[in-house]
Amino acid sequence: MKKILVKVLFLLLTLGTMQTFSQNERVRDYGIRIGVLKPGKNNAITDVEGVKVGHTTLIAGDSIRTGVTAILPHSGNIFQWKVPAAIYLGNGFGKLAGYSQVKELGNIETPIVLTNTLSVPVASNALISYTLNQDENKEVRSVNPVVGETNDGWLNDIRGRHIKEADVLQAIENAKGGPVEEGNVGAGTGTRCFQYKGGIGTASRVLPAASGGYTVGVLVQTNFGGVFELSGIPIAKELDNYSRRFTYDVDGSCMMVVMTDAPLESRNLERLAKRAMMGLAKTGGIASNGSGDYVIAVSTAKENRIPYTRDTGIIDTKLLRNEGMTPLFLATIEATEEAILNSLFAANDMVGRNQHHAKALPIHKVIEIMGKYNRIEKN
Amino acid sequence: MKKILVKVLFLLLTLGTMQTFSQNERVRDYGIRIGVLKPGKNNAITDVEGVKVGHTTLIAGDSIRTGVTAILPHSGNIFQWKVPAAIYLGNGFGKLAGYSQVKELGNIETPIVLTNTLSVPVASNALISYTLNQDENKEVRSVNPVVGETNDGWLNDIRGRHIKEADVLQAIENAKGGPVEEGNVGAGTGTRCFQYKGGIGTASRVLPAASGGYTVGVLVQTNFGGVFELSGIPIAKELDNYSRRFTYDVDGSCMMVVMTDAPLESRNLERLAKRAMMGLAKTGGIASNGSGDYVIAVSTAKENRIPYTRDTGIIDTKLLRNEGMTPLFLATIEATEEAILNSLFAANDMVGRNQHHAKALPIHKVIEIMGKYNRIEKN
Amino acid sequence: MKKILVKVLFLLLTLGTMQTFSQNERVRDYGIRIGVLKPGKNNAITDVEGVKVGHTTLIAGDSIRTGVTAILPHSGNIFQWKVPAAIYLGNGFGKLAGYSQVKELGNIETPIVLTNTLSVPVASNALISYTLNQDENKEVRSVNPVVGETNDGWLNDIRGRHIKEADVLQAIENAKGGPVEEGNVGAGTGTRCFQYKGGIGTASRVLPAASGGYTVGVLVQTNFGGVFELSGIPIAKELDNYSRRFTYDVDGSCMMVVMTDAPLESRNLERLAKRAMMGLAKTGGIASNGSGDYVIAVSTAKENRIPYTRDTGIIDTKLLRNEGMTPLFLATIEATEEAILNSLFAANDMVGRNQHHAKALPIHKVIEIMGKYNRIEKN
Amino acid sequence: MKKILVKVLFLLLTLGTMQTFSQNERVRDYGIRIGVLKPGKNNAITDVEGVKVGHTTLIAGDSIRTGVTAILPHSGNIFQWKVPAAIYLGNGFGKLAGYSQVKELGNIETPIVLTNTLSVPVASNALISYTLNQDENKEVRSVNPVVGETNDGWLNDIRGRHIKEADVLQAIENAKGGPVEEGNVGAGTGTRCFQYKGGIGTASRVLPAASGGYTVGVLVQTNFGGVFELSGIPIAKELDNYSRRFTYDVDGSCMMVVMTDAPLESRNLERLAKRAMMGLAKTGGIASNGSGDYVIAVSTAKENRIPYTRDTGIIDTKLLRNEGMTPLFLATIEATEEAILNSLFAANDMVGRNQHHAKALPIHKVIEIMGKYNRIEKN
Repeated sequence: MKKILVKVLFLLLTLGTMQTFSQNERVRDYGIRIGVLKPGKNNAITDVEGVKVGHTTLIAGDSIRTGVTAILPHSGNIFQWKVPAAIYLGNGFGKLAGYSQVKELGNIETPIVLTNTLSVPVASNALISYTLNQDENKEVRSVNPVVGETNDGWLNDIRGRHIKEADVLQAIENAKGGPVEEGNVGAGTGTRCFQYKGGIGTASRVLPAASGGYTVGVLVQTNFGGVFELSGIPIAKELDNYSRRFTYDVDGSCMMVVMTDAPLESRNLERLAKRAMMGLAKTGGIASNGSGDYVIAVSTAKENRIPYTRDTGIIDTKLLRNEGMTPLFLATIEATEEAILNSLFAANDMVGRNQHHAKALPIHKVIEIMGKYNRIEKN
Repeated sequence: MKKILVKVLFLLLTLGTMQTFSQNERVRDYGIRIGVLKPGKNNAITDVEGVKVGHTTLIAGDSIRTGVTAILPHSGNIFQWKVPAAIYLGNGFGKLAGYSQVKELGNIETPIVLTNTLSVPVASNALISYTLNQDENKEVRSVNPVVGETNDGWLNDIRGRHIKEADVLQAIENAKGGPVEEGNVGAGTGTRCFQYKGGIGTASRVLPAASGGYTVGVLVQTNFGGVFELSGIPIAKELDNYSRRFTYDVDGSCMMVVMTDAPLESRNLERLAKRAMMGLAKTGGIASNGSGDYVIAVSTAKENRIPYTRDTGIIDTKLLRNEGMTPLFLATIEATEEAILNSLFAANDMVGRNQHHAKALPIHKVIEIMGKYNRIEKN
Repeated sequence: MKKILVKVLFLLLTLGTMQTFSQNERVRDYGIRIGVLKPGKNNAITDVEGVKVGHTTLIAGDSIRTGVTAILPHSGNIFQWKVPAAIYLGNGFGKLAGYSQVKELGNIETPIVLTNTLSVPVASNALISYTLNQDENKEVRSVNPVVGETNDGWLNDIRGRHIKEADVLQAIENAKGGPVEEGNVGAGTGTRCFQYKGGIGTASRVLPAASGGYTVGVLVQTNFGGVFELSGIPIAKELDNYSRRFTYDVDGSCMMVVMTDAPLESRNLERLAKRAMMGLAKTGGIASNGSGDYVIAVSTAKENRIPYTRDTGIIDTKLLRNEGMTPLFLATIEATEEAILNSLFAANDMVGRNQHHAKALPIHKVIEIMGKYNRIEKN
Repeated sequence: MKKILVKVLFLLLTLGTMQTFSQNERVRDYGIRIGVLKPGKNNAITDVEGVKVGHTTLIAGDSIRTGVTAILPHSGNIFQWKVPAAIYLGNGFGKLAGYSQVKELGNIETPIVLTNTLSVPVASNALISYTLNQDENKEVRSVNPVVGETNDGWLNDIRGRHIKEADVLQAIENAKGGPVEEGNVGAGTGTRCFQYKGGIGTASRVLPAASGGYTVGVLVQTNFGGVFELSGIPIAKELDNYSRRFTYDVDGSCMMVVMTDAPLESRNLERLAKRAMMGLAKTGGIASNGSGDYVIAVSTAKENRIPYTRDTGIIDTKLLRNEGMTPLFLATIEATEEAILNSLFAANDMVGRNQHHAKALPIHKVIEIMGKYNRIEKN
């Protein structure tokens, strides 16, 4: 016990000095364990084989604080090899593009792009350009771009619509596997969460072999409010940092992207997507009236990719039985909670539009509180 | 042309004499062709291989005019071998049992039972008894009975809840393949449609081999209103038999059961189910406020039956591609329209509660009108 | 009877000569009556008080055949005075923008814009520009543009994305009450329907005072397939003009916009929207797999407009009881069916991309068939 | 700090002796505070004015361990004065009756009854009897009973279907305001939660006047699994009491009933209902595949009751603006979490079918753990 405290104090000292420039440790590095399942190699959405993430970050002048994040379910031509998918509307105050066709057909045919609210159209247009310009797609005349968003208008001159098509294409171009940059990058550049600086976060879980051995990865763009809790500890109460009115001050949104290599059809992917909202709840999120909380869930299982063809016949599909879903539900809840926390731990202070100043989560204080509650585990 | 008229007149004379006791010809027998696809052998839901239908009809005293119709997707133990299914709420003013579990899990695990509104609980109980008592189901402690209904309370003493569990079990017991009794039988005993006597009706379509060769069968329990049209001809206007107020006088409900041997999962079955409402529309139905218009769609494809087991693994599934759905949509629209018409053509006069008298569709007048509009085709 | 035939023959002769350049008569002008309710003054969506429609038509070179249609629920600032609304997904193979927020909040805050599939993003962007630039909206940083589409890519170089923001803003600017241009205009410029030239169509119904006296107006952008029927008469069969395969050849989409002055909340507007699909069914539409069939329903009732304010209090609302919905359902079905027919009657031949030639509905032949079936009513 | 520990130790000693017979303290009595809002007078669903709760508990022989709980939104004739309502399907593996009509019409017309899975039909029948037999309802011929359930078949001989109509009517008869019995009573008699004995629990929140001053009350029937957390502290991990397989061992269900005096229509009630799942998430629930997690939300606001009449006119409605929903969301999350915890704290050991022994939550150990984590607040 004392040993932990010493370690924590040491961490705090270290953090005190480095915090101004970057917050490099992830929540798990502090001895905070979310849930009971194990993360994947990078504790990132890219732990799902083949998944890639790319960012474009726009920081310029006094008030451009925005960006784009692209998530690719596989490295092939996604239009030609569509992936089973579902989108769940946790709270639909938002402008996500692509919902109805995913609902109807059960698949996604473009990379998933996240950006700011007023840049959904330009990002959609970029996804159309991206698709039309691929060699195999010369005859394609219908594309369903999937674009999510949150509103970074407090820090960013959102009315200026500074994102351009090239920025979106760049994010797709930048996409790669391995560790994922978190915090003030890409679509998370200008977002806020629980009145702190939010951003991009990611996490993953790998099921035990006996539960199927599947990987679930989550990536979030955090821009929402509520009463912040860290692994169940009421940080917002301790820091007295939450609204008493619970109206506009807690508004905001959270985009959640869930990828798994488990072979699921759209019905079970929608069920999976619903569990991400349960992970959000565990951070103290309340899905306020003005929140656009969307979950996009995708199965990357190679055997179930859906070829683009006019064939009207039968397709052989391998589907996980309903009975095998429960461990995936738990994995999604845990990974979503941890991804949100990672976004907060990675985000740095940001000054933007109208000199608005979004403070980073005060990690040293937070860790101190966690210590007070004995919620720091030994590594 | 003259030849047809002569034939029609002959038919009319024949009908004039026999009509009092029974209406034995189906709409197609009069030279009225619904749509462009071909019906199956019996033009009935039982044309889908393995499907069985059974009725229990309760007619007693002055005011018992009700019954039960059971539809079985296959002859095995349905709980042990569940079938992919979906339910679409055309207009949900109704008391159908079983919706949410079908939505969540995508399958049905009991026979489908239709009856009157206030007998849904007793029918549900009977389905539980039926399931619990099957030999293989000795350990079963959870059953999702699927029961649809319409309100026959104008002719029937519905408040008396005269249906008993035994009546429901009898309908299941009675179930058989081949031709299906229509009109004032089973769950259609006391129903009304377009202000005439309604009842049970059925029809089917078989797709050309090039479109997959699948069969779609529909069975309906008609108890709804609107402005009756027969193959597009405005019978209600011609007979001046429709409400001008379009409020309570057009209320009522329609239960529609769609079976197909096409290998479909619940998502595409829900899409199929939505098309049944389009068939209903073509008869002049308007899905009034007080109407309970539900469509239950089931795929009977043997290869996709879902075994009841605690296995949490993968299941091999053969699924028709989205691209193959369109001919099935058309088949569903046509078969639903024709099934509704068959229910009207088969139903006879019925006197019931409070001496309420539901008149059968005046077929001779209807055929006369069809003749006037040259809508009788040569056989 | 003879008199009608003579009249029809006369019409046919007239039509024979004028048809090359324009199809000026609407379906009702030929003595074809859809349904039993009366249309409003202009038999147009603009019969709903305050509703305006504007078109921008782009016809240029060999292959630009597209456009924009804007529908405004009222003449005020729509963002500041939102209107109760719902969107129903008849078949969601489409790229409509704005669905989820309308579902969540029950209202629409921009003009409704229709255009081609790949121009949804630019139209969305234009609606954002339109909204941000209104004087009262200087602080607005979140806008939910509602944009529907169908795919005009057979006639139009859709991959060229020729619609520009200015075209969209022009359509809004052009919006006016009174008669609505139909056929090859605006978003209907390049569309096809039942293998003929489709386009924009509109119609309306006015309820009798005893049923509330409300007006329902519908505007459609027709680009879909099936087996064409005109007031129940099987034109497609008569003209042998339908696919036998029922796969890609019947694909397409239909956007339907329903406006009413009846005071409805989003729940009952969604119910209303569902009835538009029943009107589509009556024309022979089948909502094929590849069809994007969407219905946007709006209540324009002044007393229920929703002010944009941070007020968190109570709003007085006048709502039509569920029991009053049925006549509105019928009105929606009838107006949708007639609007679709009007789109076909108004559309002219169009040659476009790759010398594709979309023929107008051969009205003289159609009327001849209608005469054969005695389906021309005296005026 | 020491003072708290002493207090806790004292509590533990006390509990150690009394626990065998009853668990009388609620979670809040131990100094555990859920959330930031204040509970109502009784911290119960009955804090919402006019709401009543009644139980019938059936404990007999070796294996009858079941019951009924009835929740009445007001003391009048509910069929004649319906209440706005919505039902949210958190995870629809369940047999709830009444869903589709509530979805379509936006209201509830009977008391809400909870019971065991296989007794839904008899409870539905009882609600029909209850309604038909009320004096004002002599002409009623259509009733939509709302019955929720969880499966108590581990402790209870559920296949015996021991609940009778009289038991259901008795629960309605027993309904009263004020404090609500929790734990092994009514529909919670035989349920289990997180592998402990579950049962009935309740809690409430009252909003500050500035947030509207509304009351939200929640009642739950807990029978579900996951990884138990108490106010964020991982009790299940500490007690090493959770499944590693996360399949059938965590299955189960949770029925949640949310009542509020805030004037909400069904759309916003559905949004409210969704938040109850977020409260469940905070206890460690994961909504496993086999879980029937349903939320029934009702507005009791007197001004919005919906008279049963054939009137087809306008109804004046006072509706809380969307913008006022957020504090109600938070209240629902907090009250649901606390209601679940109360069910566990109130439930006692139960031995039932096949000598299955459901242990009560070991409160002394739990409080010890909470002390270790400093999560016991001073009173």
